[in-house]
Amino acid sequence: MKRTLGVCYYPEHWPEDIWAEDARRMVDAGLSWVRIGEFAWSRLEPKPDEFDWGWLDRAIDVLGNAGLKVILGTPTATPPRWMLDKHPDMLAVDEQGRPRGFGSRRHYCFSHRGYREESKRITRKFAERYGTNKHIQAWQTDNEYACHDTTRSYSDAATEGFHFWLAQKYQSIDALNRAWGNVFWSMEYDDFVDIDLPNLTVTEPNHPHVLDFYRYSSDMVVGFNREQVDEIRKHTSAPIIHNYMGRETSFDHFKVGADLDIASWDSYPIGFLSDRLEGSPEFKRRFLRQGHPDNQAFHHDLYRAVGKGRWWIMEQQPGPVNWAPYNPAPLPGMARLWAWEAFAHGAETVCYFRWRQAPFAQEQMHAGLLRTDDQDAPALAEAQQVSQEINDLPDVGTAKADVALVFDYESAWAWEAQPQGADFDQFRLAFSAYRACRRAGLNVDVLPPDTDDLSAYKFTLAPGLMHLSGSLRNALTGATALIGPRTDTKTQDISIPTPLGPNVDGLNVSVTLTESLPPDVGVPLENGGQFVHWREMLEGDASVTLRTTDGHAAIMGDKLRYLAGWPDDATWDLILKDLCDETGLTHHALPDGLRIRNTQTHRFVFNYAPETIEWNGTEIPAAGVHWEAL
Amino acid sequence: MKRTLGVCYYPEHWPEDIWAEDARRMVDAGLSWVRIGEFAWSRLEPKPDEFDWGWLDRAIDVLGNAGLKVILGTPTATPPRWMLDKHPDMLAVDEQGRPRGFGSRRHYCFSHRGYREESKRITRKFAERYGTNKHIQAWQTDNEYACHDTTRSYSDAATEGFHFWLAQKYQSIDALNRAWGNVFWSMEYDDFVDIDLPNLTVTEPNHPHVLDFYRYSSDMVVGFNREQVDEIRKHTSAPIIHNYMGRETSFDHFKVGADLDIASWDSYPIGFLSDRLEGSPEFKRRFLRQGHPDNQAFHHDLYRAVGKGRWWIMEQQPGPVNWAPYNPAPLPGMARLWAWEAFAHGAETVCYFRWRQAPFAQEQMHAGLLRTDDQDAPALAEAQQVSQEINDLPDVGTAKADVALVFDYESAWAWEAQPQGADFDQFRLAFSAYRACRRAGLNVDVLPPDTDDLSAYKFTLAPGLMHLSGSLRNALTGATALIGPRTDTKTQDISIPTPLGPNVDGLNVSVTLTESLPPDVGVPLENGGQFVHWREMLEGDASVTLRTTDGHAAIMGDKLRYLAGWPDDATWDLILKDLCDETGLTHHALPDGLRIRNTQTHRFVFNYAPETIEWNGTEIPAAGVHWEAL
Amino acid sequence: MKRTLGVCYYPEHWPEDIWAEDARRMVDAGLSWVRIGEFAWSRLEPKPDEFDWGWLDRAIDVLGNAGLKVILGTPTATPPRWMLDKHPDMLAVDEQGRPRGFGSRRHYCFSHRGYREESKRITRKFAERYGTNKHIQAWQTDNEYACHDTTRSYSDAATEGFHFWLAQKYQSIDALNRAWGNVFWSMEYDDFVDIDLPNLTVTEPNHPHVLDFYRYSSDMVVGFNREQVDEIRKHTSAPIIHNYMGRETSFDHFKVGADLDIASWDSYPIGFLSDRLEGSPEFKRRFLRQGHPDNQAFHHDLYRAVGKGRWWIMEQQPGPVNWAPYNPAPLPGMARLWAWEAFAHGAETVCYFRWRQAPFAQEQMHAGLLRTDDQDAPALAEAQQVSQEINDLPDVGTAKADVALVFDYESAWAWEAQPQGADFDQFRLAFSAYRACRRAGLNVDVLPPDTDDLSAYKFTLAPGLMHLSGSLRNALTGATALIGPRTDTKTQDISIPTPLGPNVDGLNVSVTLTESLPPDVGVPLENGGQFVHWREMLEGDASVTLRTTDGHAAIMGDKLRYLAGWPDDATWDLILKDLCDETGLTHHALPDGLRIRNTQTHRFVFNYAPETIEWNGTEIPAAGVHWEAL
Repeated sequence: MKRTLGVCYYPEHWPEDIWAEDARRMVDAGLSWVRIGEFAWSRLEPKPDEFDWGWLDRAIDVLGNAGLKVILGTPTATPPRWMLDKHPDMLAVDEQGRPRGFGSRRHYCFSHRGYREESKRITRKFAERYGTNKHIQAWQTDNEYACHDTTRSYSDAATEGFHFWLAQKYQSIDALNRAWGNVFWSMEYDDFVDIDLPNLTVTEPNHPHVLDFYRYSSDMVVGFNREQVDEIRKHTSAPIIHNYMGRETSFDHFKVGADLDIASWDSYPIGFLSDRLEGSPEFKRRFLRQGHPDNQAFHHDLYRAVGKGRWWIMEQQPGPVNWAPYNPAPLPGMARLWAWEAFAHGAETVCYFRWRQAPFAQEQMHAGLLRTDDQDAPALAEAQQVSQEINDLPDVGTAKADVALVFDYESAWAWEAQPQGADFDQFRLAFSAYRACRRAGLNVDVLPPDTDDLSAYKFTLAPGLMHLSGSLRNALTGATALIGPRTDTKTQDISIPTPLGPNVDGLNVSVTLTESLPPDVGVPLENGGQFVHWREMLEGDASVTLRTTDGHAAIMGDKLRYLAGWPDDATWDLILKDLCDETGLTHHALPDGLRIRNTQTHRFVFNYAPETIEWNGTEIPAAGVHWEAL
Repeated sequence: MKRTLGVCYYPEHWPEDIWAEDARRMVDAGLSWVRIGEFAWSRLEPKPDEFDWGWLDRAIDVLGNAGLKVILGTPTATPPRWMLDKHPDMLAVDEQGRPRGFGSRRHYCFSHRGYREESKRITRKFAERYGTNKHIQAWQTDNEYACHDTTRSYSDAATEGFHFWLAQKYQSIDALNRAWGNVFWSMEYDDFVDIDLPNLTVTEPNHPHVLDFYRYSSDMVVGFNREQVDEIRKHTSAPIIHNYMGRETSFDHFKVGADLDIASWDSYPIGFLSDRLEGSPEFKRRFLRQGHPDNQAFHHDLYRAVGKGRWWIMEQQPGPVNWAPYNPAPLPGMARLWAWEAFAHGAETVCYFRWRQAPFAQEQMHAGLLRTDDQDAPALAEAQQVSQEINDLPDVGTAKADVALVFDYESAWAWEAQPQGADFDQFRLAFSAYRACRRAGLNVDVLPPDTDDLSAYKFTLAPGLMHLSGSLRNALTGATALIGPRTDTKTQDISIPTPLGPNVDGLNVSVTLTESLPPDVGVPLENGGQFVHWREMLEGDASVTLRTTDGHAAIMGDKLRYLAGWPDDATWDLILKDLCDETGLTHHALPDGLRIRNTQTHRFVFNYAPETIEWNGTEIPAAGVHWEAL
Repeated sequence: MKRTLGVCYYPEHWPEDIWAEDARRMVDAGLSWVRIGEFAWSRLEPKPDEFDWGWLDRAIDVLGNAGLKVILGTPTATPPRWMLDKHPDMLAVDEQGRPRGFGSRRHYCFSHRGYREESKRITRKFAERYGTNKHIQAWQTDNEYACHDTTRSYSDAATEGFHFWLAQKYQSIDALNRAWGNVFWSMEYDDFVDIDLPNLTVTEPNHPHVLDFYRYSSDMVVGFNREQVDEIRKHTSAPIIHNYMGRETSFDHFKVGADLDIASWDSYPIGFLSDRLEGSPEFKRRFLRQGHPDNQAFHHDLYRAVGKGRWWIMEQQPGPVNWAPYNPAPLPGMARLWAWEAFAHGAETVCYFRWRQAPFAQEQMHAGLLRTDDQDAPALAEAQQVSQEINDLPDVGTAKADVALVFDYESAWAWEAQPQGADFDQFRLAFSAYRACRRAGLNVDVLPPDTDDLSAYKFTLAPGLMHLSGSLRNALTGATALIGPRTDTKTQDISIPTPLGPNVDGLNVSVTLTESLPPDVGVPLENGGQFVHWREMLEGDASVTLRTTDGHAAIMGDKLRYLAGWPDDATWDLILKDLCDETGLTHHALPDGLRIRNTQTHRFVFNYAPETIEWNGTEIPAAGVHWEAL
């Protein structure tokens, strides 16, 4: 399959008489896809039930006739102002109890039945009109679910929905009281309708109460998306996509992904480095204009799993953005590097965001491929270079991974509800394992928590999984794998199981005590490394293969083993080195900033460092991409 | 009197068929007391006025028959969910104006008359049923007043109560306007009912307005507790206790204590070090697994005063807790050390919290003496060791103190209302003086602000007392004492007196100007020390015994003297050395982490340091306790 | 014109029988002016429409007859409690939606029509009664507009007022939608009444929406003030003044100033250093007791412009204040230095705040010229010294400035709405340029953004001006000036113009890309300096006179030039050195802490440093003032 490029475009932002020239320039630049429509509701239905389809019809024609394939987005992330007159209580409510008002975007509550009907209605209208349009070759549902912390709403609609959801799940209030352990502080309920949402309590609410609310909130996103998918599918067989975010765990992407054909994500490497990723000041200075060298790859591998193999970049940062605390410009070459890294991880398509920088509104300082004055922005030439390179290297094959990393959204919610140590975060833990794999030059598959077969992998990492699914529990038996810390130490109701976990056949280990540690304290290990943030005391018959310097077990088990703490980066490297040696994998100790990815046919080398690095005799400049046939 | 151990137990959390075995194991471990009942309201009165006493009757029988003495707690800290149907407005309101909802604990407003009646009603029911039960040998009122910032509520009920309280205090609105100085910014009121609570004002509210609201809020706690005590006393002569918190100054513990027989407090040394105490990063790393070496002792001495000599530990940390930002495990031995330190300070009983770790709900990560799977947790053996050691050393006598430290809750509120420098805090100031006494190996009595006799002490410290009571003012005349900074510089209405304070016979000193200082600036003294945070300019005829290096008085007065600033630790040591030399006390310069406490019969030595320390030829290991007859 | 001193006085705070003695002591100290009345509403109108003028009549007589000139303030910053019974919704509402309650001051919303009428009514009463009183020689409107963040209110009254204001400005909702670019996220409105205030949106609101709300809020202050001025002018020809704040940009001071006769500001050098000004810890320690050596001068020059040449200090800090995080005492001599520095910058009068320290209420820890016990506070002698020195040097003439710095309040709002980098702040940027001028010993005039003539200045600095006014655009053509960064890069609607800005005749430069930088990253320049916070990419025909070390233009243009980044202090010095050399000005490299100001007749030298500095052979002690005839 030939890789392709695309771009996001907003015909409603520009005079109609420049659309054709825009389309021509897109094609000239080697772009194949153009995404439109996802914020255009006020122009398509300016008053309730009064539609103005003409301009969109013409825009699709112009773009399609120029040779572009169109991705059409449903506009539900930005309901028009008149929608609030119909549904005054449709706004989400924040954790402090304040309605989240009109004036930007994503101003809706996923639980609001009235808005859910509006979402289905406008999606139906879109699908009826454009489902058979030959230029529409893909669909996007809504835009960036969860963005701006919008998954969870503390509204009346959410309260009612939560009561219904709980009643369905537990069937009796006694069952809920038992599952939650509500006897603890006389928190027992007589009826589902007595249960408030878990915000604004005197001290922390009960963890299963929180976890169930997070599950409910995720299910609302899944349901909202499914309703759109159902409407679209009635009218088209084109693939349906959603554009996910980076480091966003508030809903279960695997469950949303199950209803879609392709996963995509919006990749803003420099914005994320500044805004969402941990890192020392030195690290952040070093990669200021390149982004975190592992963050994009992690999300590529995650969304490849979410997309069941099919995935895109729907929005690729082309220059400075507007929304991070600081917004530097990328190093020349990065807009090319990021695209090639996506392709090496299996992306079918990379769409840059956006075609022409908007001179107005909230994102006017967000770069595009064109400047506001219609001149080429720096990234355009890089996009063109990529499109030419694709011609030489149209398909690099499907990559095979040697290592599996299990990632679980429910565990992220569980540890958010019950961190026990202030900086315990499931994403951070999983990413620390992933980064070590990257430093070792390993190809990784991210797997969902209901995985039932690990046999394709040399070894599996499964840190921090609150409770193992039955299928994964079976798959781990006999596998070479490292689980822990915290893995399988809770029931599904986020209580402590009896017998103590983990409870996996063939691994006689129990976690008897846990402690969390402040950032400046570590627990030294006999291999020279240390645990940070977290460590556990173990007991059981399994062999101890690593100890703390004060004599406690740090890793127990043979093929399947349990890790009793959170390794710092150097320690992860030591642990992975052992796993590689044991399973016959090459553990590359890559130079700082250099990353590799093997596809079926080629090895790709990416230089995220701000200086030239030599790799096997090849000088790879800063922001450079190198590939060689395998 | 023989010292005893106990434990907190929740029969409602466990199957009835294990109660007897639990009781047997408690007795085997050497425990004498068991506290129960304080969170069990929903199980005792599952619907309004429908009681289910049977299980509690049986639990008391099982425990009592096994040989345990039972402390019964009133369950008012956790009213059941149905209570909100009866009293929808009973919730406290936070300073931002938001009701503090159901779903954890302490969800009530002390000012709400309806809930006050419910508190009396359930206490009466408890007392009627169990007042004459032979196994109930002590009572606990409610649980941890003030926990989770619950003393002060900004509710309508509090507003009404405050109006009534102000009317009683001032009798006329003119008197209030004058006392508060309301003319200042046209803040004069025509009627008590016009007075809002002092939250959500445009800029800071008037300090006497705030101080009176804090006094009112404290009085509500006192009244709430007294109502329970009155109900209990009608039916029993067993001692009545409340379990106070660490570093909690929002209500006057002396006033609550006046209505009770015994004071107790809940001691979580490691949680407090992480969560509530100042200290350098190095200090916090050093004592990470032991707790602050002076914090427990300070509270022991404080609550001995609150209890008028009789005091307990009601909850003693046995292992990692769940509620601090970071929750490390104690160093082996600390569960023993903490108990012996309490005994050395006069505790009658130390109860560990809790018997078996709960596998569910908010505190599931809080260790107990047993693990969730019924196995011994590490602290159980240490408790057993203490119980055996008590047999060898049943009574170490009542300690005599050489030094008095006056502590005043009203001053804490006054400086909270009017800090003048961002980090001025009365607890912190008093604790800085106390810590210096501890480093010098001195026995200290904490005294309430209405103390009228200091003759038993070699010298007295009274820093930061807003306004001296008449009795203390008299007692200071002629005493060897160090007062200041800020001591007696305000009227009772938190205004500046004329003549300028302090106004104590025999000390001709006035504070004419004060300044607060940022953390990185000090005022050097001629003795090599420095003032931090705060310094004052003095005038008067009293002799100057210490000066700042720029020539201003730092200490004035002879036997009774005034301290014109906040000494840093090294300076406190210099000042105490002088006071000891002058009064014939030995000023030990104890090794870092080593602490001593003399009882009537023994000297106890506690090693809080993480390494062995030699003390007079004896090697005392980390977490070690050593005693020698005096 | 002879310079004069004054003081702020509150007769309502003191017994009437000490007023005469107070007046006598003021005159003895050399004070000429006394400001009264601005917080006294509750004493003048204790009940609605029941007035008690007698005490104020007598106070004015006593003060006036003693030889003092009285400034009378309208009391509208502190409406009495009964006002809320008349207008329950008159309170401002904060950005979180909470009413800002009674109990301190400034508890009103500028948009509330009812309170606006009350403001006019009480001002009319004042003017009718005292307009012709011979002792009243000046008037003050309200007190410190904007203090405590009170310019912007999110009330219903503000919402309604904003709708009306928008309708007037845009005339049609389509025009507003186009100007704001509301198509961007379907934010288009059908009617002005549908527009909410820009708070509590899901993510950031649209920048022109915010900017227009800030403009509206500023206009409300202007209107409020104008209404008072109109009432006063009907009855007197005495000058009308307002006392502005330091570093307060929430309303357009030039527009308020246009309606007044004299500008004044309240100068608290030490409070501001601690509370509102950036600076390294070392810097803040060095100037702890003196204040920022450039902050007072900047505001002097700013308010000289706001006052169209006539300006005062209405409140001068005399000792420690109460409201900053830390409140140290000034170095002896500073109360004199600050006064002389004001005179050297053209102040007509300097009034100390306040006469006698109040022993009660919120500001009881704020020093005065007298202590609460009626003794002289340290600053009194310094004021007396100044009054004597004035006799020797009654008029130092009107200073001429060589350098102009354009300052624009709208730009401050624009960059607050759209900082793009977290620490971009217009005041900070302008002040960084001003400070460099001060370090070079240059006399500076601050100019408003509608300036139309720069010919009096050797050169002009105009950094960060969002959009150049037509007059300034013309004036810059042909001038020697340095504009940028960000200058003229937006339309008046805060969108990006076509062609790209700046658009000034004779300067062929366009800003094509901008980036913001975290605090620890700089962009090095070929002159050895660096850009921080911000840098831009330029294109155009103008000559490049400075480059970044990576080859991009840093300054382009000849006489009129554009600066493509934010210089750090050392770089500003390099840039100013070049400008001075080019224009024939002497660039002094002043010793750290020493500052000079040339008047028409004298050069003044001020030593802000805490140590003696030699200046041209003269030893100037810490806090010293030196003058020499020119």
